[in-house]
Amino acid sequence: MLTHEIFHKKNMLTFDIPPLDCALKPELEACIDNKTKPLRSLGRLEDIALKVGLIQNTLTPKLARPVILVFAGDHGIVEEGVSPFPQAVTQQMVHNFLAGGAGINVFARQNGVALRIVDAGVNHIFGLLPDLIDAKIGMGTASFKQARAMDEAQCEQALEHGAELARAEIQAGSNVLGFGEMGIGNTSAAAALMSVFCDLPPEQCVGRGAGHDDDGVRRKLATIHAAIKLHQCSAYDPLQVLATFGGFEIAMMAGAMLGAAEKKAVLLIDGFIATSALLVASRLAPEILDYCIFSHCSDESGHALLLRHLQAEPLLNLGLRLGEGTGAALAYPLVQASVNFLNEMASFQSAKVSTKGSA
Amino acid sequence: MLTHEIFHKKNMLTFDIPPLDCALKPELEACIDNKTKPLRSLGRLEDIALKVGLIQNTLTPKLARPVILVFAGDHGIVEEGVSPFPQAVTQQMVHNFLAGGAGINVFARQNGVALRIVDAGVNHIFGLLPDLIDAKIGMGTASFKQARAMDEAQCEQALEHGAELARAEIQAGSNVLGFGEMGIGNTSAAAALMSVFCDLPPEQCVGRGAGHDDDGVRRKLATIHAAIKLHQCSAYDPLQVLATFGGFEIAMMAGAMLGAAEKKAVLLIDGFIATSALLVASRLAPEILDYCIFSHCSDESGHALLLRHLQAEPLLNLGLRLGEGTGAALAYPLVQASVNFLNEMASFQSAKVSTKGSA
Repeated sequence: MLTHEIFHKKNMLTFDIPPLDCALKPELEACIDNKTKPLRSLGRLEDIALKVGLIQNTLTPKLARPVILVFAGDHGIVEEGVSPFPQAVTQQMVHNFLAGGAGINVFARQNGVALRIVDAGVNHIFGLLPDLIDAKIGMGTASFKQARAMDEAQCEQALEHGAELARAEIQAGSNVLGFGEMGIGNTSAAAALMSVFCDLPPEQCVGRGAGHDDDGVRRKLATIHAAIKLHQCSAYDPLQVLATFGGFEIAMMAGAMLGAAEKKAVLLIDGFIATSALLVASRLAPEILDYCIFSHCSDESGHALLLRHLQAEPLLNLGLRLGEGTGAALAYPLVQASVNFLNEMASFQSAKVSTKGSA
Repeated sequence: MLTHEIFHKKNMLTFDIPPLDCALKPELEACIDNKTKPLRSLGRLEDIALKVGLIQNTLTPKLARPVILVFAGDHGIVEEGVSPFPQAVTQQMVHNFLAGGAGINVFARQNGVALRIVDAGVNHIFGLLPDLIDAKIGMGTASFKQARAMDEAQCEQALEHGAELARAEIQAGSNVLGFGEMGIGNTSAAAALMSVFCDLPPEQCVGRGAGHDDDGVRRKLATIHAAIKLHQCSAYDPLQVLATFGGFEIAMMAGAMLGAAEKKAVLLIDGFIATSALLVASRLAPEILDYCIFSHCSDESGHALLLRHLQAEPLLNLGLRLGEGTGAALAYPLVQASVNFLNEMASFQSAKVSTKGSA
């Protein structure tokens, strides 16, 4: 092992995520229950209000400078015909993000969420683009049907870069971070990660991605079957699994999630790929799940099962499967609404409204 | 029949809602499909974008001055112990709305939706309150276990007032209207309307309302059974059914929905009570359904079934059961997102992004 690998490993494997302090739970619940509404009548918003209150350890939580980090990367596995779109779409979409024309641009703009576009490892030389964060680990991964997608040093570097980017946002005043991605072929990487970590057959993890027909899905499935057989990874070595099947954008996203949770930020988890990154992160530091709000259930077929595996209840179920962090951006107003009702609604006492049973 | 009743009937029964012109459908679909995203990957948002485009008959729809009308009214049926809250809560909550402390205030404020509070028939003299719209039909309805809730003239007046209020908002520049309510006892009225119009046993329509225990639900159910048996209404006479079981706020809300649809506004339908008002409206003018976006599925047990009856697919399913139009206010950003992606996202051509199959 090279010296810098040891150095990295030391840094990387010590993500230190504080478990939630639940001392305020009874007070928060009383505060929620005393708002002028029938008991529990704000449903899931009440769960979110409680969660954000516990994360911030206050009865008056605030969401500050919401930001979505969008990580882009390319995947060697596209050589195997696992995507109906050409690899060039990854870099084309990065340009689209920078020009403000993609779905995530529209929804982030609408909902007051800042956007950061990160080149985690796109197979393209962008040159100097002031709004693109250059965190490139390589020119796309290797095909995991042939070899590991990346080596361990690259994997750790991606995690580290992600954590640094998240810390920088928090340093700048953000306490709520969403995570999105762009990478042609990355539903294959996510499906392989899910299959290994959840010990599920690839059939339950592989979906249509960006729009495969049945033949395409069969090809994708056969590729993932062959790759899992080739590598024989152990789910108990999360870094090895991540390096074998992951993408640079997935590894960097996992690092960003870990870095954000270390600083007690609220994490908005997007769709299938983002959830696969969280799956990796949760194997490195299980406490991370306490900081997550699951924005939506994707139409990508493995996502519902992956969410169940994480015991996650998503806010939205709208048949979305666009990625980019769009689900996180769309769900953000519901998170904001949860915090707002806690801070702004009157109590039965303050509004002089009679309570139940006082008829 | 009294002269004024004939006069009213003439006016009321001629809600003239234009059926959707679907000529633009192929162009709208092509526009949606050419956005830089996998086909259909924005799921339900694509349906909403298409619907709003058809309602406004344009490829570039705009949502202007969103407003939620909250109608408050009291119900004589509370005498029968159908609510765990005292009737005074209706007027107390109206004061809470005017002070800005209720759930609907928080969510409307957050999402840039204007709010109008309407006294449709609260059992309380408010005196002069500049922000309260006085459209009072009476001091609450009669108990429909004993008699009709209101007479036909009152019912028609409520419908007419509602339509006038909606027209006034549209006149002032709004083209998207949500509808909310407050009225202790009004889940009983809504359940009775649903039972008669949908020809379903009350057991499938009655729920816990603002928070009944099992005994309360049984009492509510027995009351509704007895009332339906007493009145023997025909579902083919919607005004009679509405006058028999409805509330002033439900009738006025139905009128507002009809008036708004006549002017081709987008209608945001809230929870159980609002949907029961729409059910009435749809029996007076079935074309109204073309203008509706269903914001959420309430936790009130009859709502899911009522939505199915209307072949409605709600946007949110968050276990809400607060009423007031809160579901409509919370779903509004998703409607806005649907229109925004249609107007603001780049196309494959404009962004020079390769399409599927060009690998």
